Amino acid sequence: MQLPSKVKLVDVGPRDGLQNEKEPVPAAVKIALVHRLQDAGLRDIEVTSHVSPKWVPQMADAAEVMAGLARQPGVRYSVLTPNMKGFEAALQGKPDEVVIFGAASEAFSQRNINCSIAESIERFAPVVEAARAKGIHVRAVMSTAVGCPYEGEIAPERVEMFARLARQIGAQHLGVADTIGVGTPRKVQRAMEAALKHFELDAVSGHFHDTYGQALANTLACLQMGIWQYDASVAGLGGCPYAKGATGNVATEDVVFMLHGLGIETGIDLDKLVDAGKFISDFLGRKPNSRVATAVLNKRSG
Amino acid sequence: MQLPSKVKLVDVGPRDGLQNEKEPVPAAVKIALVHRLQDAGLRDIEVTSHVSPKWVPQMADAAEVMAGLARQPGVRYSVLTPNMKGFEAALQGKPDEVVIFGAASEAFSQRNINCSIAESIERFAPVVEAARAKGIHVRAVMSTAVGCPYEGEIAPERVEMFARLARQIGAQHLGVADTIGVGTPRKVQRAMEAALKHFELDAVSGHFHDTYGQALANTLACLQMGIWQYDASVAGLGGCPYAKGATGNVATEDVVFMLHGLGIETGIDLDKLVDAGKFISDFLGRKPNSRVATAVLNKRSG
Repeated sequence: MQLPSKVKLVDVGPRDGLQNEKEPVPAAVKIALVHRLQDAGLRDIEVTSHVSPKWVPQMADAAEVMAGLARQPGVRYSVLTPNMKGFEAALQGKPDEVVIFGAASEAFSQRNINCSIAESIERFAPVVEAARAKGIHVRAVMSTAVGCPYEGEIAPERVEMFARLARQIGAQHLGVADTIGVGTPRKVQRAMEAALKHFELDAVSGHFHDTYGQALANTLACLQMGIWQYDASVAGLGGCPYAKGATGNVATEDVVFMLHGLGIETGIDLDKLVDAGKFISDFLGRKPNSRVATAVLNKRSG
Repeated sequence: MQLPSKVKLVDVGPRDGLQNEKEPVPAAVKIALVHRLQDAGLRDIEVTSHVSPKWVPQMADAAEVMAGLARQPGVRYSVLTPNMKGFEAALQGKPDEVVIFGAASEAFSQRNINCSIAESIERFAPVVEAARAKGIHVRAVMSTAVGCPYEGEIAPERVEMFARLARQIGAQHLGVADTIGVGTPRKVQRAMEAALKHFELDAVSGHFHDTYGQALANTLACLQMGIWQYDASVAGLGGCPYAKGATGNVATEDVVFMLHGLGIETGIDLDKLVDAGKFISDFLGRKPNSRVATAVLNKRSG
């Protein structure tokens, strides 16, 4: 089994995770979470989203959160910027990376970002141009790359199409996201192969949900393809908006446990990461949605 | 990715799962669970254990459960028989398979079955001989094959030693069990490679715990070695006696979802399996400990 020797994890908890909380989390708590993540060794953190507070009140404090960060050198702080208005709002916070967020499924694009795939690409193009002109890294995320709650299975050709469009407008990185967690190892590999037709191995990452418990198996399958960048969410923050009570983002703790067990370096201190997850879970009044965190916390309490 | 086209799952829920419940489950409920499992397509079910009711009151009804089964042709009903006394008690129930249960870790053997590994093998030898004389299949299970709660990591040499001893006394099959769920894909593969020095590929199975969420990734790694037999427990029955509240046996539902997604046949109807898990979980007054069951039940309830 030939695997990468190092893996970079992007913790998307503060953004993708907390965006799905019913009650907005105070900016100070979000800032404290980012600080704990960077202290645990995370070098890539998706911090917030510059979107309309009317649609996403959970992220209304984006500017405050970015302004409040005690930044560490070597850490990349990224923000979602769905359009030029968001991008311009983001600039003051000096993000290291902006994220544009589309879909491989037409129906999901319509329902999630209220426009067709083609329209979304048109909307993203000036954002990419403006970001690159300012030397800001651009990551495109393709949601529903394996399955869609409205369209069912997504063919690899659809993934390739979105990847081609994202490449054409100048995105430097493509995140391949199994938004509803229905992917299994071979399906995920086929989606990745399609993405790799337009992006280099070093410019592709996996974003897996654990709704059906498949995230780590899918990660292993992608590691075997040489893919070395993955999103994950501390304490499994995020839930799954399409199935109440179900699991969403894979927990960073669980991914780290597997990677370290495989002898792969992440630069992350698992104990501190569990602490970060416990911190935010305590605030939210629930237990971390991570099997590793559960086992580690049980072990600690004897 | 070359994988087996078919996989056989052994549901260990009625035995390994319910043995870990504080309150003994009534025989009628156990029988109903076995019936639901066979109706869902399971062809291998670990039903009960013939052990001292003083030590394991949960299995005191072993004879009653075996006598109460409406057996289906083609289904293998297995029982644990730790010694000759248990084996003789088991005979009346006409099991298709008896299971002997040892450990790769000396400390675990001492604490779990109150004897050394060498003594356990001595105790098992007459059981194997008597079973084979009667044409009953014998499966040996090696617990703590990757890690031990008392000794830490277990070297593959220890696995090989237990495998050699089990083979010497005539066991026909070896189950390699990661009892505390600390295994990750490469470690599990190394344990399997050691087991395969003494047992053929068709005579080895994997038994993984999901305590750290690694069971499906470990299963995928073993599928890639050609291993096509796995234990699992419906609804994740079993818990983890070494970490309160943590997950034990991997849920059969989660394994089936991955296998079917990979295009591997199991003969199991996932919906009926989820029903079986819900049946026993409702009886126990909790939710199934399976991400797939959670997602499927959420989806059903709309």
